[in-house]
Amino acid sequence: LKFAVLAGDYIGPEVMRSALRVLEKVAAQDGLTLDYAEHAVGGSAIDAHGSALPASTLAACEAADAILFGSVGGPKWETLPPKEQPERAALLPLRKHFTLFANIRPGLLYPELREASPLKNERIPDGIDIVCIRELTGGIYFGSPKRTTALEGGADVEAIDTMVYRKSEIERIAAVAITAARSRKKRLCSVDKANVLETSVLWRKTVSDYVAAHAPDITLSHMYVDNAAMQLAREPNQFDVFVTENMFGDILSDEMAVICGSLGMLSSASLGARQNSLGNPFGLYEPAGGSAPDLAGQGLANPCAQILSAALMLRYSFGLEASAARIERAVRHVVTCGTRTGDIAFGGPAVSTEEMTEAILATLG
Amino acid sequence: LKFAVLAGDYIGPEVMRSALRVLEKVAAQDGLTLDYAEHAVGGSAIDAHGSALPASTLAACEAADAILFGSVGGPKWETLPPKEQPERAALLPLRKHFTLFANIRPGLLYPELREASPLKNERIPDGIDIVCIRELTGGIYFGSPKRTTALEGGADVEAIDTMVYRKSEIERIAAVAITAARSRKKRLCSVDKANVLETSVLWRKTVSDYVAAHAPDITLSHMYVDNAAMQLAREPNQFDVFVTENMFGDILSDEMAVICGSLGMLSSASLGARQNSLGNPFGLYEPAGGSAPDLAGQGLANPCAQILSAALMLRYSFGLEASAARIERAVRHVVTCGTRTGDIAFGGPAVSTEEMTEAILATLG
Ligand SMILES: CC(C)[C@H](C(=O)O)[C@@H](O)C(=O)O
Ligand SMILES: CC(C)[C@H](C(=O)O)[C@@H](O)C(=O)O
Repeated sequence: LKFAVLAGDYIGPEVMRSALRVLEKVAAQDGLTLDYAEHAVGGSAIDAHGSALPASTLAACEAADAILFGSVGGPKWETLPPKEQPERAALLPLRKHFTLFANIRPGLLYPELREASPLKNERIPDGIDIVCIRELTGGIYFGSPKRTTALEGGADVEAIDTMVYRKSEIERIAAVAITAARSRKKRLCSVDKANVLETSVLWRKTVSDYVAAHAPDITLSHMYVDNAAMQLAREPNQFDVFVTENMFGDILSDEMAVICGSLGMLSSASLGARQNSLGNPFGLYEPAGGSAPDLAGQGLANPCAQILSAALMLRYSFGLEASAARIERAVRHVVTCGTRTGDIAFGGPAVSTEEMTEAILATLG
Repeated sequence: LKFAVLAGDYIGPEVMRSALRVLEKVAAQDGLTLDYAEHAVGGSAIDAHGSALPASTLAACEAADAILFGSVGGPKWETLPPKEQPERAALLPLRKHFTLFANIRPGLLYPELREASPLKNERIPDGIDIVCIRELTGGIYFGSPKRTTALEGGADVEAIDTMVYRKSEIERIAAVAITAARSRKKRLCSVDKANVLETSVLWRKTVSDYVAAHAPDITLSHMYVDNAAMQLAREPNQFDVFVTENMFGDILSDEMAVICGSLGMLSSASLGARQNSLGNPFGLYEPAGGSAPDLAGQGLANPCAQILSAALMLRYSFGLEASAARIERAVRHVVTCGTRTGDIAFGGPAVSTEEMTEAILATLG
């Protein structure tokens, strides 16, 4: 299994170590060989190489079948202009370069961890189990024109961003959403703003037509994005899988994440249009949370999000469903049995990153 | 006080009646004369006049100093194309026609109503008290080009929306936000996506410069919109006043509304660039919630949002701060003392729209 490891800043390398140990163990058990190396990315890459995504890192990713990503950024680089900050300067070029158009984020909260959610327990008696599919290479992130100009006379200034979607871009993300819904309750909610946006009118029609033509077994509904922001906070489990465009997905997936309690538990997959050498989608796998500068260096970070991201890598880019599911079950077992890092301990005894990792390794057998 | 009454559909006219009774009472007490008439809007206007915003209604609004708006839309018109649906077809032209650029939405949850919020009680021990200021006539709602075209060869289709902001548009909403923050804790958070959008880079710079030049007494911070969606659900009271562009405000203000519990309690003001005949801002005042078709005709809707919207009209368009504050105190008194419609009764005894209104009138003295 050939993948590039981009651990990044602060807790990034700490939790990455845990994920690699878990992968090593599963590989040994399942007779797989790991072939990976670490490459600089993010703020530490800015410091060492003058770029958040050095050419050597990009080349290493090119040569791999998947990218296991940690997290980047932190106070040290917050004084940089917003567009040069490590997260933005590393992730956006990676997404564009590899056409990572399908961001899959499980919104999973085990019932035992309900206390971690800001929502009242009775709203989520069985925890939360939904999936957000976000289009990741289109829309207002990459459309042009995108510029700022002084207006005639020079007194005023005008800035412009362009949101663009093609039918073909919408169809390929709809296909991913259908696959996700098929593996679950077969309910898909497409989120847009078709009462205001032309791109959303095209989005709604394309998703409707595509589901009608290719997935009559899926129950499709549509919801405006403002309403979706309400419904997520009100009753998240009314969703099964929801799919939306890039910017809406940025906002809603983060709202979903916070509602699911700890960012330390949430993984994500960003699948590319291109197939890797195994005929599976090339992909980038990363925790939903950030580099947590306040926690770094203490060995206290929750490694689960990174470990679960590695499981997603096995599932999607290496086609190893059984190995992926085994990791997911091990994490769930350990956490629900009460081995918890501080972010999910609710004042009870908290373990270290190392202890959490050991517990998961032990559960794997 | 000359205002146009646009009650709209379903519960719109029911709660409007309550608001008008409250206004009549306050007018009698304060020696004011009300001068208003009702005009068709929304779905019922589509049915009666073939337009969600008939020319006669628009003319009546033109001749008034403010608009008291109910709510529009419902299942009957949901089969219309998204852009012809009553809410969209009535509100967007009104906003544009009167340049209602400043949408002010109080996010207020009395501590006694904490049960109504989806958030755990301990997250909001004192309820919620924040304000969202949304830019309402710019951005991606109105920018051009906004079109869908078949691409060469005819196999694919492309849709485009344009997000545009001018410095001058950002300055005028910053001024409104500063005024709001000054009347409160003097903390202003500007929400944008400056790591991705040109319009947000201009937004951030303009707000920063404007606050530095005109309001050194205000503590300004900046937050990315995805993070704001998280922070609102995590700990809403970390905000005092937040200000954001049109589309982000659409999403965040609705998220804020649901976190504040009942839509039946939330009011809003949309202030125009133009002064009315009294030298105050022309404005449109409406509840944050919708027309609630399921509740309509039963006399059970919560009239508070409409009554509080009428109070905002007195404050902003008529300069009657004392009268506005008296209404707000009366509503708060009645609700916190336990007179509650079904939406905020938590299974306890619920009163009718009429009884709620009577209680507020009685409290007004
Ligand atoms: C860093 C930023 C550009 C990025 C985005 O907006 O997509 C991040 O918020 C995310 O969601 O991965
Ligand atoms: C009806 C719709 C166009 C409108 C908007 O998006 O602004 C509504 O959602 C609102 O927030 O008032």
